[in-house]
Amino acid sequence: MNYPRGIKKEKVNTVNYANRGMGLESDLNETNQYYLVNNIAVIYKKPTPITIKKVDYISPTKIKIKDAYFQKPSTTDYNGIYRGKYIDFEAKETKNENSFPLRNIHKHQLEHLKKIIEHGGIGFLIVRFITKDETFYLDGKDLIYFLENSTKKSIPYSFFQKKGHLININYHPRLDYLKIIDKIYFKGEKV
Amino acid sequence: MNYPRGIKKEKVNTVNYANRGMGLESDLNETNQYYLVNNIAVIYKKPTPITIKKVDYISPTKIKIKDAYFQKPSTTDYNGIYRGKYIDFEAKETKNENSFPLRNIHKHQLEHLKKIIEHGGIGFLIVRFITKDETFYLDGKDLIYFLENSTKKSIPYSFFQKKGHLININYHPRLDYLKIIDKIYFKGEKV
Repeated sequence: MNYPRGIKKEKVNTVNYANRGMGLESDLNETNQYYLVNNIAVIYKKPTPITIKKVDYISPTKIKIKDAYFQKPSTTDYNGIYRGKYIDFEAKETKNENSFPLRNIHKHQLEHLKKIIEHGGIGFLIVRFITKDETFYLDGKDLIYFLENSTKKSIPYSFFQKKGHLININYHPRLDYLKIIDKIYFKGEKV
Repeated sequence: MNYPRGIKKEKVNTVNYANRGMGLESDLNETNQYYLVNNIAVIYKKPTPITIKKVDYISPTKIKIKDAYFQKPSTTDYNGIYRGKYIDFEAKETKNENSFPLRNIHKHQLEHLKKIIEHGGIGFLIVRFITKDETFYLDGKDLIYFLENSTKKSIPYSFFQKKGHLININYHPRLDYLKIIDKIYFKGEKV
Protein backbone atom coordinates (compact mmCIF):
# COMPACT_ATOMS: atom_id res chain seq x y z
CA MET A 1 0.00 0.00 0.00
CA ASN A 2 1.39 3.34 -0.99
CA TYR A 3 -1.16 5.68 0.44
CA PRO A 4 -0.25 9.30 0.89
CA ARG A 5 -0.67 10.97 -2.47
CA GLY A 6 -2.98 8.31 -3.85
CA ILE A 7 -5.52 8.87 -1.13
CA LYS A 8 -5.37 12.60 -1.32
CA LYS A 9 -6.03 12.54 -5.04
CA GLU A 10 -8.92 10.19 -4.59
CA LYS A 11 -10.63 12.73 -2.40
CA VAL A 12 -9.87 15.74 -4.55
CA ASN A 13 -10.43 14.28 -7.98
CA THR A 14 -12.67 11.74 -9.65
CA VAL A 15 -12.54 8.03 -8.97
CA ASN A 16 -11.41 7.47 -12.51
CA TYR A 17 -8.38 9.64 -11.93
CA ALA A 18 -7.68 7.94 -8.63
CA ASN A 19 -7.31 4.65 -10.43
CA ARG A 20 -5.10 6.24 -12.99
CA GLY A 21 -3.23 7.94 -10.17
CA MET A 22 -1.90 4.58 -9.02
CA GLY A 23 -0.92 3.72 -12.58
CA LEU A 24 2.58 5.14 -12.83
CA GLU A 25 3.57 3.95 -9.38
CA SER A 26 2.35 0.43 -9.96
CA ASP A 27 3.98 0.37 -13.42
CA LEU A 28 7.27 1.34 -11.80
CA ASN A 29 6.91 -1.17 -8.98
CA GLU A 30 6.29 -3.92 -11.51
CA THR A 31 9.26 -2.74 -13.59
CA ASN A 32 11.62 -2.56 -10.60
CA GLN A 33 10.49 -6.00 -9.51
CA TYR A 34 11.28 -7.26 -13.02
CA TYR A 35 14.74 -5.68 -12.84
CA LEU A 36 15.35 -7.25 -9.43
CA VAL A 37 14.18 -10.77 -10.31
CA ASN A 38 16.17 -10.75 -13.55
CA ASN A 39 19.23 -9.38 -11.77
CA ILE A 40 19.34 -6.30 -13.99
CA ALA A 41 19.24 -3.64 -11.28
CA VAL A 42 18.38 -3.17 -7.61
CA ILE A 43 16.00 -0.21 -7.41
CA TYR A 44 13.36 0.35 -4.72
CA LYS A 45 10.74 2.89 -3.84
CA LYS A 46 11.48 4.36 -0.44
CA PRO A 47 8.79 4.13 2.20
CA THR A 48 6.98 7.40 2.84
CA PRO A 49 8.32 9.05 5.98
CA ILE A 50 5.84 9.51 8.80
CA THR A 51 5.89 11.29 12.14
CA ILE A 52 4.56 9.08 14.89
CA LYS A 53 2.67 10.69 17.77
CA LYS A 54 1.18 7.72 19.59
CA VAL A 55 1.60 3.93 19.66
CA ASP A 56 0.00 1.01 21.47
CA TYR A 57 1.99 -1.99 22.69
CA ILE A 58 -0.21 -4.88 21.67
CA SER A 59 2.40 -7.53 22.42
CA PRO A 60 6.18 -7.52 22.92
CA THR A 61 6.62 -7.89 19.16
CA LYS A 62 3.58 -6.01 17.88
CA ILE A 63 3.24 -2.25 18.02
CA LYS A 64 0.16 -0.50 16.72
CA ILE A 65 0.59 3.04 15.43
CA LYS A 66 -2.43 5.00 16.63
CA ASP A 67 -1.59 8.54 15.66
CA ALA A 68 0.80 9.51 12.89
CA TYR A 69 1.15 11.94 9.98
CA PHE A 70 2.86 11.88 6.61
CA GLN A 71 6.00 13.99 6.34
CA LYS A 72 7.22 15.90 3.33
CA PRO A 73 9.95 13.72 1.84
CA SER A 74 13.37 15.36 1.74
CA THR A 75 14.68 13.08 -0.98
CA THR A 76 13.20 11.47 -4.07
CA ASP A 77 11.03 8.36 -4.00
CA TYR A 78 13.23 5.89 -5.86
CA ASN A 79 16.88 4.95 -5.67
CA GLY A 80 19.19 2.04 -6.26
CA ILE A 81 22.02 0.71 -8.38
CA TYR A 82 22.35 -0.15 -12.08
CA ARG A 83 25.55 -1.20 -13.86
CA GLY A 84 27.55 0.05 -10.89
CA LYS A 85 25.93 3.48 -11.04
CA TYR A 86 23.85 5.13 -8.36
CA ILE A 87 20.30 5.75 -9.68
CA ASP A 88 17.91 8.30 -8.15
CA PHE A 89 14.61 9.58 -9.45
CA GLU A 90 11.19 11.02 -8.77
CA ALA A 91 8.07 9.90 -10.65
CA LYS A 92 4.99 12.07 -11.12
CA GLU A 93 1.77 12.14 -13.06
CA THR A 94 -0.07 15.20 -14.28
CA LYS A 95 -3.56 15.71 -15.68
CA ASN A 96 -2.33 18.89 -17.37
CA GLU A 97 -2.22 18.63 -21.14
CA ASN A 98 0.47 21.10 -22.04
CA SER A 99 2.83 21.34 -19.11
CA PHE A 100 4.11 19.71 -15.95
CA PRO A 101 3.60 22.00 -12.92
CA LEU A 102 6.76 22.23 -10.84
CA ARG A 103 4.76 22.48 -7.61
CA ASN A 104 4.43 18.69 -7.96
CA ILE A 105 8.04 18.42 -6.81
CA HIS A 106 9.33 19.91 -3.57
CA LYS A 107 12.25 22.29 -3.79
CA HIS A 108 14.45 20.07 -1.61
CA GLN A 109 13.75 17.15 -3.93
CA LEU A 110 15.12 19.17 -6.84
CA GLU A 111 18.14 20.13 -4.73
CA HIS A 112 18.60 16.48 -3.86
CA LEU A 113 18.63 15.49 -7.57
CA LYS A 114 21.19 18.21 -8.24
CA LYS A 115 23.45 16.90 -5.48
CA ILE A 116 23.17 13.35 -6.79
CA ILE A 117 24.39 14.48 -10.21
CA GLU A 118 27.25 16.47 -8.65
CA HIS A 119 28.35 13.31 -6.84
CA GLY A 120 28.39 11.27 -10.05
CA GLY A 121 25.00 9.59 -9.83
CA ILE A 122 22.27 9.33 -12.46
CA GLY A 123 19.31 11.49 -11.46
CA PHE A 124 16.13 12.01 -13.45
CA LEU A 125 12.37 12.50 -13.49
CA ILE A 126 9.72 10.20 -14.89
CA VAL A 127 6.65 12.22 -15.83
CA ARG A 128 3.38 10.84 -17.14
CA PHE A 129 0.96 13.06 -19.02
CA ILE A 130 -2.24 11.21 -18.19
CA THR A 131 -4.49 12.72 -20.85
CA LYS A 132 -1.98 11.88 -23.58
CA ASP A 133 -1.04 8.56 -22.00
CA GLU A 134 2.62 9.38 -22.54
CA THR A 135 5.44 8.80 -20.07
CA PHE A 136 8.72 10.65 -20.38
CA TYR A 137 12.19 10.20 -18.94
CA LEU A 138 13.70 13.64 -18.33
CA ASP A 139 17.37 13.53 -17.45
CA GLY A 140 18.37 15.48 -14.34
CA LYS A 141 20.86 17.55 -16.32
CA ASP A 142 18.11 18.74 -18.66
CA LEU A 143 15.83 19.40 -15.71
CA ILE A 144 18.51 21.52 -14.02
CA TYR A 145 19.15 23.35 -17.29
CA PHE A 146 15.45 24.20 -17.47
CA LEU A 147 15.27 25.34 -13.85
CA GLU A 148 18.33 27.55 -14.21
CA ASN A 149 17.21 29.13 -17.47
CA SER A 150 13.53 29.63 -16.97
CA THR A 151 11.29 31.43 -14.51
CA LYS A 152 8.26 29.35 -15.55
CA LYS A 153 6.38 27.50 -12.86
CA SER A 154 5.81 24.52 -15.10
CA ILE A 155 7.80 22.62 -17.70
CA PRO A 156 6.07 22.80 -21.10
CA TYR A 157 5.12 19.55 -22.79
CA SER A 158 7.20 20.71 -25.74
CA PHE A 159 10.32 20.63 -23.52
CA PHE A 160 9.64 16.96 -22.78
CA GLN A 161 9.22 16.31 -26.50
CA LYS A 162 12.49 18.07 -27.24
CA LYS A 163 14.73 17.01 -24.35
CA GLY A 164 12.88 14.09 -22.78
CA HIS A 165 12.72 10.48 -23.92
CA LEU A 166 9.39 8.76 -24.41
CA ILE A 167 9.23 5.46 -22.49
CA ASN A 168 7.24 2.80 -24.31
CA ILE A 169 4.67 0.95 -22.27
CA ASN A 170 5.10 -2.77 -22.68
CA TYR A 171 3.71 -5.86 -21.12
CA HIS A 172 6.72 -6.95 -19.06
CA PRO A 173 8.48 -4.87 -17.88
CA ARG A 174 5.86 -2.16 -18.11
CA LEU A 175 8.20 0.84 -18.32
CA ASP A 176 11.70 -0.08 -19.38
CA TYR A 177 13.35 3.19 -18.35
CA LEU A 178 16.80 1.64 -17.99
CA LYS A 179 16.89 1.31 -21.77
CA ILE A 180 17.05 5.08 -21.92
CA ILE A 181 19.85 5.16 -19.36
CA ASP A 182 21.72 2.65 -21.53
CA LYS A 183 21.38 5.05 -24.44
CA ILE A 184 22.39 8.21 -22.56
CA TYR A 185 25.01 6.90 -20.14
CA PHE A 186 26.35 3.72 -21.72
CA LYS A 187 26.07 4.69 -25.39
CA GLY A 188 23.83 1.75 -26.03
CA GLU A 189 26.53 -0.80 -25.10
CA LYS A 190 25.07 -4.06 -23.86
CA VAL A 191 25.78 -5.16 -20.30
CA MET B 1 11.61 10.01 15.52
CA ASN B 2 12.86 6.60 14.61
CA TYR B 3 10.61 4.41 16.59
CA PRO B 4 10.29 0.78 15.67
CA ARG B 5 13.28 -0.99 17.16
CA GLY B 6 13.98 1.67 19.73
CA ILE B 7 10.57 1.31 21.27
CA LYS B 8 10.60 -2.44 21.22
CA LYS B 9 13.92 -2.52 23.03
CA GLU B 10 12.71 -0.07 25.58
CA LYS B 11 9.98 -2.49 26.53
CA VAL B 12 12.15 -5.59 26.55
CA ASN B 13 15.27 -4.22 28.13
CA THR B 14 16.22 -1.62 30.68
CA VAL B 15 15.81 2.10 30.20
CA ASN B 16 19.55 2.47 30.26
CA TYR B 17 19.88 0.21 27.25
CA ALA B 18 17.07 2.01 25.45
CA ASN B 19 19.06 5.22 25.61
CA ARG B 20 22.13 3.44 24.38
CA GLY B 21 19.99 1.82 21.72
CA MET B 22 19.51 5.19 20.06
CA GLY B 23 23.23 5.85 20.21
CA LEU B 24 24.47 4.28 17.00
CA GLU B 25 21.55 5.54 14.99
CA SER B 26 21.90 9.10 16.20
CA ASP B 27 25.68 8.96 15.68
CA LEU B 28 25.07 7.88 12.08
CA ASN B 29 22.40 10.52 11.51
CA GLU B 30 24.78 13.19 12.75
CA THR B 31 27.57 11.80 10.58
CA ASN B 32 25.42 11.61 7.44
CA GLN B 33 24.21 15.15 8.07
CA TYR B 34 27.86 16.24 8.33
CA TYR B 35 28.64 14.50 5.02
CA LEU B 36 25.64 16.17 3.38
CA VAL B 37 26.30 19.69 4.63
CA ASN B 38 29.98 19.46 3.71
CA ASN B 39 29.13 18.02 0.29
CA ILE B 40 31.13 14.85 0.97
CA ALA B 41 28.38 12.30 0.34
CA VAL B 42 24.60 12.00 0.08
CA ILE B 43 23.56 9.17 2.40
CA TYR B 44 20.19 8.84 4.13
CA LYS B 45 18.44 6.46 6.47
CA LYS B 46 15.35 5.09 4.77
CA PRO B 47 12.03 5.54 6.55
CA THR B 48 10.72 2.40 8.21
CA PRO B 49 8.04 0.81 6.04
CA ILE B 50 4.59 0.60 7.57
CA THR B 51 1.33 -1.05 6.58
CA ILE B 52 -1.58 1.35 6.93
CA LYS B 53 -4.96 -0.04 7.90
CA LYS B 54 -7.00 3.07 8.65
CA VAL B 55 -6.72 6.83 8.08
CA ASP B 56 -8.79 9.89 8.92
CA TYR B 57 -9.18 12.83 6.56
CA ILE B 58 -8.74 15.79 8.86
CA SER B 59 -8.53 18.33 6.05
CA PRO B 60 -7.88 18.14 2.30
CA THR B 61 -4.16 18.33 2.99
CA LYS B 62 -3.94 16.57 6.35
CA ILE B 63 -4.37 12.85 6.78
CA LYS B 64 -4.14 11.21 10.18
CA ILE B 65 -2.96 7.61 10.30
CA LYS B 66 -5.14 5.87 12.89
CA ASP B 67 -4.14 2.24 12.53
CA ALA B 68 -0.82 1.03 11.12
CA TYR B 69 1.92 -1.52 11.76
CA PHE B 70 5.65 -1.69 11.17
CA GLN B 71 6.74 -3.97 8.33
CA LYS B 72 9.89 -6.04 8.13
CA PRO B 73 12.24 -4.06 5.89
CA SER B 74 13.28 -5.89 2.72
CA THR B 75 16.38 -3.79 2.21
CA THR B 76 18.98 -2.23 4.48
CA ASP B 77 18.41 0.98 6.41
CA TYR B 78 20.96 3.28 4.79
CA ASN B 79 21.91 4.04 1.23
CA GLY B 80 23.31 6.81 -0.91
CA ILE B 81 26.24 7.93 -3.02
CA TYR B 82 29.90 8.63 -2.26
CA ARG B 83 32.60 9.47 -4.81
CA GLY B 84 30.30 8.24 -7.58
CA LYS B 85 29.80 4.88 -5.85
CA TYR B 86 26.54 3.43 -4.60
CA ILE B 87 26.71 2.93 -0.82
CA ASP B 88 24.43 0.56 1.10
CA PHE B 89 24.62 -0.61 4.69
CA GLU B 90 22.88 -1.85 7.78
CA ALA B 91 23.79 -0.66 11.28
CA LYS B 92 23.23 -2.69 14.43
CA GLU B 93 24.11 -2.68 18.07
CA THR B 94 24.57 -5.68 20.30
CA LYS B 95 24.83 -6.08 24.05
CA ASN B 96 26.66 -9.36 23.51
CA GLU B 97 30.30 -9.26 24.53
CA ASN B 98 31.83 -11.88 22.32
CA SER B 99 29.74 -12.14 19.19
CA PHE B 100 27.20 -10.46 16.97
CA PRO B 101 24.03 -12.59 16.64
CA LEU B 102 22.99 -12.90 13.01
CA ARG B 103 19.31 -12.94 13.96
CA ASN B 104 19.72 -9.17 14.25
CA ILE B 105 19.70 -9.00 10.45
CA HIS B 106 16.92 -10.42 8.30
CA LYS B 107 17.87 -12.96 5.68
CA HIS B 108 16.56 -10.78 2.84
CA GLN B 109 18.71 -7.92 4.11
CA LEU B 110 21.80 -10.10 3.75
CA GLU B 111 20.65 -11.11 0.27
CA HIS B 112 20.14 -7.48 -0.55
CA LEU B 113 23.73 -6.63 0.48
CA LYS B 114 25.00 -9.49 -1.64
CA LYS B 115 23.11 -8.19 -4.68
CA ILE B 116 24.44 -4.68 -4.15
CA ILE B 117 28.00 -5.99 -4.25
CA GLU B 118 27.28 -8.06 -7.37
CA HIS B 119 26.03 -4.89 -9.07
CA GLY B 120 29.20 -2.97 -8.21
CA GLY B 121 28.07 -1.13 -5.10
CA ILE B 122 29.77 -0.83 -1.74
CA GLY B 123 27.84 -2.82 0.87
CA PHE B 124 28.77 -3.24 4.51
CA LEU B 125 27.67 -3.55 8.12
CA ILE B 126 28.32 -1.19 10.97
CA VAL B 127 28.20 -3.10 14.27
CA ARG B 128 28.54 -1.60 17.71
CA PHE B 129 29.52 -3.76 20.68
CA ILE B 130 27.84 -1.75 23.40
CA THR B 131 29.64 -3.25 26.41
CA LYS B 132 33.04 -2.63 24.80
CA ASP B 133 31.96 0.70 23.31
CA GLU B 134 33.53 -0.31 20.01
CA THR B 135 32.04 0.24 16.56
CA PHE B 136 33.23 -1.78 13.59
CA TYR B 137 32.92 -1.46 9.84
CA LEU B 138 32.62 -4.93 8.34
CA ASP B 139 32.88 -4.97 4.57
CA GLY B 140 30.10 -6.85 2.75
CA LYS B 141 32.63 -9.11 1.05
CA ASP B 142 33.99 -10.25 4.41
CA LEU B 143 30.46 -10.68 5.72
CA ILE B 144 29.54 -12.88 2.74
CA TYR B 145 32.76 -14.86 3.15
CA PHE B 146 31.80 -15.53 6.77
CA LEU B 147 28.22 -16.52 5.90
CA GLU B 148 29.37 -18.89 3.18
CA ASN B 149 32.06 -20.53 5.27
CA SER B 150 30.47 -20.84 8.65
CA THR B 151 27.37 -22.43 10.11
CA LYS B 152 27.57 -20.25 13.22
CA LYS B 153 24.55 -18.21 14.16
CA SER B 154 26.65 -15.30 15.26
CA ILE B 155 29.81 -13.59 14.08
CA PRO B 156 32.54 -13.81 16.75
CA TYR B 157 34.02 -10.59 18.06
CA SER B 158 37.41 -11.96 16.99
CA PHE B 159 36.22 -11.94 13.36
CA PHE B 160 35.49 -8.22 13.66
CA GLN B 161 38.94 -7.69 15.15
CA LYS B 162 40.54 -9.61 12.30
CA LYS B 163 38.49 -8.55 9.27
CA GLY B 164 36.60 -5.50 10.47
CA HIS B 165 37.80 -1.94 10.85
CA LEU B 166 37.37 -0.07 14.10
CA ILE B 167 35.65 3.30 13.57
CA ASN B 168 36.92 5.98 15.90
CA ILE B 169 34.32 8.03 17.70
CA ASN B 170 35.01 11.72 17.27
CA TYR B 171 33.27 14.92 18.01
CA HIS B 172 32.24 15.93 14.50
CA PRO B 173 31.55 13.81 12.54
CA ARG B 174 30.83 11.22 15.20
CA LEU B 175 31.60 8.10 13.14
CA ASP B 176 33.69 8.81 10.09
CA TYR B 177 33.04 5.50 8.32
CA LEU B 178 33.78 6.90 4.86
CA LYS B 179 37.46 7.10 5.90
CA ILE B 180 37.45 3.32 5.93
CA ILE B 181 35.84 3.19 2.49
CA ASP B 182 38.59 5.54 1.27
CA LYS B 183 41.15 3.05 2.54
CA ILE B 184 39.49 -0.08 1.13
CA TYR B 185 38.04 1.19 -2.15
CA PHE B 186 40.07 4.24 -3.06
CA LYS B 187 43.45 3.16 -1.67
CA GLY B 188 43.52 6.18 0.57
CA GLU B 189 43.59 8.64 -2.37
CA LYS B 190 42.15 12.02 -1.47
CA VAL B 191 39.02 13.21 -3.27
